[in-house]
Amino acid sequence: MSVQVSPEELEEYRDFAVEVATKAGEMIKKAFYKTKTVTNKGSGVDPVTETDKAVEKWVIGFIKERYPEHRFIGEETTDLDAPFDFRDDLTWIVDPIDGTNNFVHNVPEVAFSMGLTANKKVIVGVVNLPVLDLMYTSMKGHGSYCNGRKLVTGSVEELKKSIVIYDTSVLRTPWNVDTVLKNVRNIITKTHGLRTYGTAAVHCCKMAEGHAQAFVEYGLYCWDFVAGLLIAQEAGVHVMDPDGGPCDLMGHRILMGCTAKVANELSAMITHHKMHRP
Amino acid sequence: MSVQVSPEELEEYRDFAVEVATKAGEMIKKAFYKTKTVTNKGSGVDPVTETDKAVEKWVIGFIKERYPEHRFIGEETTDLDAPFDFRDDLTWIVDPIDGTNNFVHNVPEVAFSMGLTANKKVIVGVVNLPVLDLMYTSMKGHGSYCNGRKLVTGSVEELKKSIVIYDTSVLRTPWNVDTVLKNVRNIITKTHGLRTYGTAAVHCCKMAEGHAQAFVEYGLYCWDFVAGLLIAQEAGVHVMDPDGGPCDLMGHRILMGCTAKVANELSAMITHHKMHRP
Repeated sequence: MSVQVSPEELEEYRDFAVEVATKAGEMIKKAFYKTKTVTNKGSGVDPVTETDKAVEKWVIGFIKERYPEHRFIGEETTDLDAPFDFRDDLTWIVDPIDGTNNFVHNVPEVAFSMGLTANKKVIVGVVNLPVLDLMYTSMKGHGSYCNGRKLVTGSVEELKKSIVIYDTSVLRTPWNVDTVLKNVRNIITKTHGLRTYGTAAVHCCKMAEGHAQAFVEYGLYCWDFVAGLLIAQEAGVHVMDPDGGPCDLMGHRILMGCTAKVANELSAMITHHKMHRP
Repeated sequence: MSVQVSPEELEEYRDFAVEVATKAGEMIKKAFYKTKTVTNKGSGVDPVTETDKAVEKWVIGFIKERYPEHRFIGEETTDLDAPFDFRDDLTWIVDPIDGTNNFVHNVPEVAFSMGLTANKKVIVGVVNLPVLDLMYTSMKGHGSYCNGRKLVTGSVEELKKSIVIYDTSVLRTPWNVDTVLKNVRNIITKTHGLRTYGTAAVHCCKMAEGHAQAFVEYGLYCWDFVAGLLIAQEAGVHVMDPDGGPCDLMGHRILMGCTAKVANELSAMITHHKMHRP
């Protein structure tokens, strides 16, 4: 039996996600400025993992308190080697810090990402960039917003006139590196340029803002893009699987275009990564 | 005979540059939001060029009025095919919009850049990112600031632990593209990752902020990095020519590290571009 969510409940869940993202963002921001010193000592990785874990632990507790019947999937508490137990029930999917590498290196694009699924579809997505003071929110069917400002993606119809976001930080196996280089070659010679910011959640939000016209990324987990996917879709972005067909939350990859034409052209142009998991 | 600048004059020139950058920033920001529509029609290039020219024209007039004896080098009014007439006299070097490609594509990293040289050395550098509300300022020997906040770069000592900014949007000749790909391969396999934001002025400011640990870019003109160079240096960034030796304002290229060691390691790792002009 499928889960029913009323409009009132949808709004309640969105407000709850914003509440969680605000508090989590405060924890992350505080740690971001603290780790500067630690990173400089060359031992910045452990404290970051501690922050990831501390944030996720707090989020789990907060969700359990408010919605004991809801399910939870989070980066720090999920067994990556087992298939996820992803069900139709209301499920919060959380990445305490998307862009941990940015976090360690003092790069301000650091995101808290939280999505709610019902019947395995995203219905609420919230991404908070606490260092940049940007809060992205979305509800299925109700648009997406940044700090209250409604988002609308661009309307470019040609990939060759697009800025393309592509993440180059994949597994360093020779095959993957060769694939990355083929894609970089195509992007820098056949489009208006490559940009890369180090976090999938931010990449999705940039598509929603219209700050780029196309985007593809491999090696993801659902928590990296579940919220960003809805934020982008609700701003008019065409979201798909890089190989074609609908995007699969458990598919470890995503492709977007500000229009369907741009998305399909990017899907046709890129060399597809074989690896589906990082 | 070399030009003498008193501390009072230095401050006066910095204040003047901030005044110019503020007003130019307003013009750019207004045009940035206007061109969204035009870009979507696929004809966003001409109005942008008009904005570049309009800003530079206004800046030249404003400088001539205040300092008729000063010299001027600007992107839109300089003959790119002739050697620049660069002299010891006080010279304002201006890029009305650094990141024109970003501007056209609605990417918010768009910069007004203005530097003052005396005896061919930068003594004042101001970069304004009007869409992001970030004003970077610097005076030789007096540090650099963003919106009044003092900037200090990082202290990472190893390139392999660094985030590296590298611009991939060079001339699309096969040789250049091959060089870019060699560098991308080295960066993504031997460091902590690649980032690229589409403007040299912003790349320099990110180094000053400590938002990246290393940076190299080719195919530049002096107006792209004259201000950013001082902003970075005054935040403790080690600036050099990619081939080694001191950075040459007319050398069409720049390399930076948060420490000298990181800068030298990057210089040793990269394949150097042959082309010195875009």
